[in-house]
Amino acid sequence: MRRISDMRQTLDKQIDDSRGSLWHDFVRTRSRTLQLTENLEVDDFVVQTAVYMSPPKWHIGHVSWLFEVIMSRINKDYQFYSNEFSAYLNSYYNQFGEPHQKGRRGTVSRPTLSQILDYYVEINSRVQVFLTEFNMNYGHAKSLFEMGLNHECQHQELMVYDLQHLLADLYVPSKKTEPPKDATTSPSVSSDMMHVGGGMYSMGYGGDGFCYDIELPEHSVYVDDCTLGRFPVTNAEYMEFIKDGGYSMFENWLSDGWKIVQEREWNSPMYWEEIDGQWCTLDFRGQRPINPTEPVVHVSFYEADAYARWAGKRLPTEAEWEKAACYDVKSGTKRIYPWGDELPDTHKCNLLESNIWGCTSIGSYPDGASPSGCEQMIGDVWEWTSSEFVGYRGFKSAFREYNDKWFTGQKVLRGGSYGTPSISIRGSYRNFFRLDERWMFAGFRLASDS
Amino acid sequence: MRRISDMRQTLDKQIDDSRGSLWHDFVRTRSRTLQLTENLEVDDFVVQTAVYMSPPKWHIGHVSWLFEVIMSRINKDYQFYSNEFSAYLNSYYNQFGEPHQKGRRGTVSRPTLSQILDYYVEINSRVQVFLTEFNMNYGHAKSLFEMGLNHECQHQELMVYDLQHLLADLYVPSKKTEPPKDATTSPSVSSDMMHVGGGMYSMGYGGDGFCYDIELPEHSVYVDDCTLGRFPVTNAEYMEFIKDGGYSMFENWLSDGWKIVQEREWNSPMYWEEIDGQWCTLDFRGQRPINPTEPVVHVSFYEADAYARWAGKRLPTEAEWEKAACYDVKSGTKRIYPWGDELPDTHKCNLLESNIWGCTSIGSYPDGASPSGCEQMIGDVWEWTSSEFVGYRGFKSAFREYNDKWFTGQKVLRGGSYGTPSISIRGSYRNFFRLDERWMFAGFRLASDS
Amino acid sequence: MRRISDMRQTLDKQIDDSRGSLWHDFVRTRSRTLQLTENLEVDDFVVQTAVYMSPPKWHIGHVSWLFEVIMSRINKDYQFYSNEFSAYLNSYYNQFGEPHQKGRRGTVSRPTLSQILDYYVEINSRVQVFLTEFNMNYGHAKSLFEMGLNHECQHQELMVYDLQHLLADLYVPSKKTEPPKDATTSPSVSSDMMHVGGGMYSMGYGGDGFCYDIELPEHSVYVDDCTLGRFPVTNAEYMEFIKDGGYSMFENWLSDGWKIVQEREWNSPMYWEEIDGQWCTLDFRGQRPINPTEPVVHVSFYEADAYARWAGKRLPTEAEWEKAACYDVKSGTKRIYPWGDELPDTHKCNLLESNIWGCTSIGSYPDGASPSGCEQMIGDVWEWTSSEFVGYRGFKSAFREYNDKWFTGQKVLRGGSYGTPSISIRGSYRNFFRLDERWMFAGFRLASDS
Amino acid sequence: MRRISDMRQTLDKQIDDSRGSLWHDFVRTRSRTLQLTENLEVDDFVVQTAVYMSPPKWHIGHVSWLFEVIMSRINKDYQFYSNEFSAYLNSYYNQFGEPHQKGRRGTVSRPTLSQILDYYVEINSRVQVFLTEFNMNYGHAKSLFEMGLNHECQHQELMVYDLQHLLADLYVPSKKTEPPKDATTSPSVSSDMMHVGGGMYSMGYGGDGFCYDIELPEHSVYVDDCTLGRFPVTNAEYMEFIKDGGYSMFENWLSDGWKIVQEREWNSPMYWEEIDGQWCTLDFRGQRPINPTEPVVHVSFYEADAYARWAGKRLPTEAEWEKAACYDVKSGTKRIYPWGDELPDTHKCNLLESNIWGCTSIGSYPDGASPSGCEQMIGDVWEWTSSEFVGYRGFKSAFREYNDKWFTGQKVLRGGSYGTPSISIRGSYRNFFRLDERWMFAGFRLASDS
Repeated sequence: MRRISDMRQTLDKQIDDSRGSLWHDFVRTRSRTLQLTENLEVDDFVVQTAVYMSPPKWHIGHVSWLFEVIMSRINKDYQFYSNEFSAYLNSYYNQFGEPHQKGRRGTVSRPTLSQILDYYVEINSRVQVFLTEFNMNYGHAKSLFEMGLNHECQHQELMVYDLQHLLADLYVPSKKTEPPKDATTSPSVSSDMMHVGGGMYSMGYGGDGFCYDIELPEHSVYVDDCTLGRFPVTNAEYMEFIKDGGYSMFENWLSDGWKIVQEREWNSPMYWEEIDGQWCTLDFRGQRPINPTEPVVHVSFYEADAYARWAGKRLPTEAEWEKAACYDVKSGTKRIYPWGDELPDTHKCNLLESNIWGCTSIGSYPDGASPSGCEQMIGDVWEWTSSEFVGYRGFKSAFREYNDKWFTGQKVLRGGSYGTPSISIRGSYRNFFRLDERWMFAGFRLASDS
Repeated sequence: MRRISDMRQTLDKQIDDSRGSLWHDFVRTRSRTLQLTENLEVDDFVVQTAVYMSPPKWHIGHVSWLFEVIMSRINKDYQFYSNEFSAYLNSYYNQFGEPHQKGRRGTVSRPTLSQILDYYVEINSRVQVFLTEFNMNYGHAKSLFEMGLNHECQHQELMVYDLQHLLADLYVPSKKTEPPKDATTSPSVSSDMMHVGGGMYSMGYGGDGFCYDIELPEHSVYVDDCTLGRFPVTNAEYMEFIKDGGYSMFENWLSDGWKIVQEREWNSPMYWEEIDGQWCTLDFRGQRPINPTEPVVHVSFYEADAYARWAGKRLPTEAEWEKAACYDVKSGTKRIYPWGDELPDTHKCNLLESNIWGCTSIGSYPDGASPSGCEQMIGDVWEWTSSEFVGYRGFKSAFREYNDKWFTGQKVLRGGSYGTPSISIRGSYRNFFRLDERWMFAGFRLASDS
Repeated sequence: MRRISDMRQTLDKQIDDSRGSLWHDFVRTRSRTLQLTENLEVDDFVVQTAVYMSPPKWHIGHVSWLFEVIMSRINKDYQFYSNEFSAYLNSYYNQFGEPHQKGRRGTVSRPTLSQILDYYVEINSRVQVFLTEFNMNYGHAKSLFEMGLNHECQHQELMVYDLQHLLADLYVPSKKTEPPKDATTSPSVSSDMMHVGGGMYSMGYGGDGFCYDIELPEHSVYVDDCTLGRFPVTNAEYMEFIKDGGYSMFENWLSDGWKIVQEREWNSPMYWEEIDGQWCTLDFRGQRPINPTEPVVHVSFYEADAYARWAGKRLPTEAEWEKAACYDVKSGTKRIYPWGDELPDTHKCNLLESNIWGCTSIGSYPDGASPSGCEQMIGDVWEWTSSEFVGYRGFKSAFREYNDKWFTGQKVLRGGSYGTPSISIRGSYRNFFRLDERWMFAGFRLASDS
Repeated sequence: MRRISDMRQTLDKQIDDSRGSLWHDFVRTRSRTLQLTENLEVDDFVVQTAVYMSPPKWHIGHVSWLFEVIMSRINKDYQFYSNEFSAYLNSYYNQFGEPHQKGRRGTVSRPTLSQILDYYVEINSRVQVFLTEFNMNYGHAKSLFEMGLNHECQHQELMVYDLQHLLADLYVPSKKTEPPKDATTSPSVSSDMMHVGGGMYSMGYGGDGFCYDIELPEHSVYVDDCTLGRFPVTNAEYMEFIKDGGYSMFENWLSDGWKIVQEREWNSPMYWEEIDGQWCTLDFRGQRPINPTEPVVHVSFYEADAYARWAGKRLPTEAEWEKAACYDVKSGTKRIYPWGDELPDTHKCNLLESNIWGCTSIGSYPDGASPSGCEQMIGDVWEWTSSEFVGYRGFKSAFREYNDKWFTGQKVLRGGSYGTPSISIRGSYRNFFRLDERWMFAGFRLASDS
């Protein structure tokens, strides 16, 4: 859509003018939302393909509305743009009245895309004025805006899932890059298990930048010795599980998982289809034979757990995962990322800005290895852990109803995916999904007692 | 949408050039489809608000696709435009492969509206060529095209229902006319019952124009003496039923209906809402107090039946309705319409071309009265009968899977509504819906044994 | 159960003492209820195997309770035995308060069987006193008691269905007789079609004995010439439909039926199972190969209709069926049964008292043929007609909520089955079931326009 | 039932003859199953009142069948009594073929109660012979039999839940005792919070008797300082939550819980009903006003969690609960029970053998207090913890499909209830239920960070 490209160019000019400030980060994030959608047709913005998806125009409106919520938290006199918009764009906050029914976001045509884009522009203006008029230096206001930006990053990733589901290779990215060619590792070594030493570990975010409330407080946990896979489990490995009848042997499965396997007739990851004896997947690269050296993706917790059981191993706890990713035994110190405290770049991991629009093969990022020797912990695929998503001991909610109301029935995933914006991932980042969900870019890494 | 208006103007020029021919009727019908949608936003074309509704762009594509089906019936070598389009645009014909899931028409964004409009134009061109190259004089080919036109008329009416549900008063019609002001009848006389004489009656369509297979063959039925309401039951009368506790007295209801009343918590017709003690409805005129002198609309069969039982009367059979509408005792002859064989006009009834976009009050059309004295049998609201929708004795299917596969679980409605195009209604026309449906413009008229 | 046999013997002694009176009929009917259950275990009385079935002890209580209802209609001062019993034993009468949930009759253990049998005996005593004290000669009181007896007969038949579903050949009947051996007709002639002349017909019960309100009033209908099958369709014939792929060809099916065939994965009548290439059924004779010369049984309306369509024929209307069964062209008179006005006996048809506990082969009852030459119209299997179950024109309800609240969504079946007590069947008898039900003993007979 | 009492007397004689052996424990446990059911009517044995309940006769058969499974594990040549029985009595073990559908246990009448009792006696005989012939001294065989006994204890408790649901005060216990009268504590002190010191704790069963595999291995966990309620939360306290609108304030609820509260319209614990402004419950003591000093019971995890949040506290983790119950700071040692290693007796807690058939008031068992000062941790009500039910680190399954296949979607409860047989409870015992279940005797105790 021409209009969106124009809007983005206008915004991008402001990036150059404001590097380093909150406004700079705001503009850069907002621009990325437009970039993701600038090649869509109007029709594409309106449709919701499944109850767990949302129409792109809803995402664009919703992330904007959250900035209104934030401004209203700081300035009690803040006037919302429109009650109708607020009602439609509220995702699940009971505090703002009965939310619009999630599964029915694709059943309303108004506000139109055009009106949503007007709204988007208006919110940008309001934020610009707001940041000038209000002192953002005191912690809470600043962290609320940072939360708003990170929230928009989350919805960018959700929108990537939605666009794959809606359009697959009909989607035209603004930029596209080839994956690294020099993967140094053959699939057979993917079963390497790296040692992670036990003892007390101080878990959670310990830096001085932004993090979510659920990454806090840092707190002591006891972790035993264990080993973790050097790489996530690959398609080639997962194929062995399928060939061995993994989906039809109840012994591999938790009772809840076995019930779902039978009800939904699962026999492979989501998006997979067997065509003339060849397993294929469907993603932004189109329908194509699975690549044996890429991590398996679009598996539920139940499938990850069943595979691990079949393989005589188990999934890591999130404490084990985080310690393997961030703890340097030699120095006895914790890092923010596996490679240290420097921000992610395209030599270390595969995130949204890598513009690869798919997984890379294992071994593609030796420079991103953690002190324990695990690779590709950041990017490519979210990794299921065995840990239930609950608050850390001493948890304090920073934004009512944002994370804490989800403290049941979900498992934690770690590490980000090729759809995650780089500013929004850290070693301590905790994502969470229900155990049967597999529409997101989720894979897993094995663990075992050592 | 500018593009649709332009398309319509191009088409309309061809109307003037071709008056009287099949092509003329084709162009006029196609133009009406465009007219109904020319003031919509792109977003409006994509959305499906309920499982029984469809996105407007689907309607536009589907009615075009049916002309492809018709051409393929006449010319076995006909090449369809696109397999993908056919799959999406097939409503329920198993003969063309598994139909696209009805409830999921709003979950795909491609083909886009723009592509559907290209298709629409292309089909017009193909039909134009086809009509020139093939001899349409032999009956079957001609009647298939007429069927195609009538089918498009049906979808125009469905689209009117959809647009009311989607937009209500946000919908901007191309034309809008005031209802007749000189209604000569007060609501109180609506309980007048008109006598209809018994004896054998030759039921079904007896003219030489187009009709559907389900209106044939003409066949003998025995009808006893009875009386029918002079007018459809009004909002004022229906309000009495509500006030008397009609929705909470099981005695009024058939067992199936009572179950539904309780499950769905019905306490009034669809679209009604009690606001500050005043019953209001929501339609193309916006949310407004119900008008006591208009026929009640958006009631299910169960509600119509319950009202009739409560009122000490019953619903008419379709034989009684048709005889009351079309039989002239004096001359002993049958007519096509209550007023004779002349086509409907705006002095006789309220149909789509009346452009009133709502019901008129009872007594608005004395010129449209039937020989038995019943008024407004054509137009305003479809009227529920007590007859199950089945084939007449000797029924022969003219178009496989079009009507005959629905011969269970539905009741016949007669007479057309303010959303019905005038060329598509006749005294013998048989519409049919499930007993719990009420999203269409359905009301009813009372009957009793005499 | 010894106790039940004892109760029956006590009752049976009273039969001999009272031949010819209302009390005689009462005792005989009540005794038959005991006879059906006297060989059951206590456990069998308590269980409900499906939502459309009921526990035998519930049936025993319910039919007794209806006599309480009847006595309370005649004597306004009548005191019910127990409010708790009334609540549990009410089947579907809203007039007596919210009925106990039908599908949960098997989830209560109290009242116990023992208490229900006490109740049964007590009601017998009360009726005996009542019949002595109240004058039963005036019509309404008498007809209410007759209704009560016929109601108990209906539940005896339902209990036969339940016992087949619960126990099949584990059920031990009190009496068992071999089917007639001298069937004169080979299966191949089952396709004989008998001519039924058209014209006006006076439909409904015209005798002076008991009939249900829905068999009245006698009223004029116009019937065209048609033909009806000499016999019900046999298993051998139905097998041809199956072999020809009848269950997987959408062309044979009404849309509603096709949906159900796919959802429930029907590929044969209920109780059928293909074992080593041989179709078998399961009934009171155990699991056994189907008998080709018996009428097909346990088919839904949809299957009957699909078969008829596949065979190039149709189902009869109930007017056609009744005229074929009861009208004698030669004499121009109507009969109560196909063979005349004499009560059914074991030489003319296969009913409950035949004690055959299964269908007989076609041709088993030439003495029971109707004037039109149709055989086995009474007994063996209920026969689906194409007619919706609604009240006849001029219908007056004799017992509130008994029949009239079911006037939607059901089709009429005629003729009785091998589970029907002989006093409760007539040529004018109208049974009714939903179109997808097949747990009762239902088959069908073909018809065609002539 | 006389027969069951007779069977029990026969068994009980063998108790006296065999004190101290595996056979002794077996007989005593089996006798308790008979004792629980000896006053039921036959009807009561057959009925299943809800999908989560089972008919008593099924329980009796199922616990017997598990001994067959155990014997077949030890002796590969063991011949099962009957394939039909095995199919019906299998609860959820896929390894023995498709289990009978849980929700349909009440829809079969055969095997009859009488046959199940025969089976029960036969299994006793077989076990007696088996214990004589096989050397039970080696660990695994012995522990399998102990597991079988503990399994029967679990079903005794389940049967108590079922009997309350089926019969409430119509149930006649064999023995009934008054609750202790000398409760020393007023309800107001129930909010006392007892301090539990932090640090490493060795969690799990550390004794040398029987325990389940899920209580093993003992393993190190780090626990922070915290406080736990001296008593479980009482009805009086819970009433405050209700009165304060606790059920209608979304702020108190986890998102999953809030959804269920609305769907199921919960406004109080299960079995509660407000009658004339007085909250009443229904249990073995009949329908009666709630007792303010008893622990609240029949609440789901969601309700326990919501209460805790409303009260500004939280639920304990299972590590916190166990440490509070079993760890003696002074001696630095772990105990099996709060009061030490001696078996439970009626002066220390309220379990099944207390025969109280309901909760006791808080303060009833000062002799049962733990080293940290918490009371009534054993008995009265199971206590919800915040911990997901998963295997301890290093978990090894002792009996395939018994516990480990349930390692998702459930929370751990601790401490036993007044329906728990005393031999089957320990401080390390881990019970587990889904978060929305409340038909068992479940309450909770508060915790907070200290």
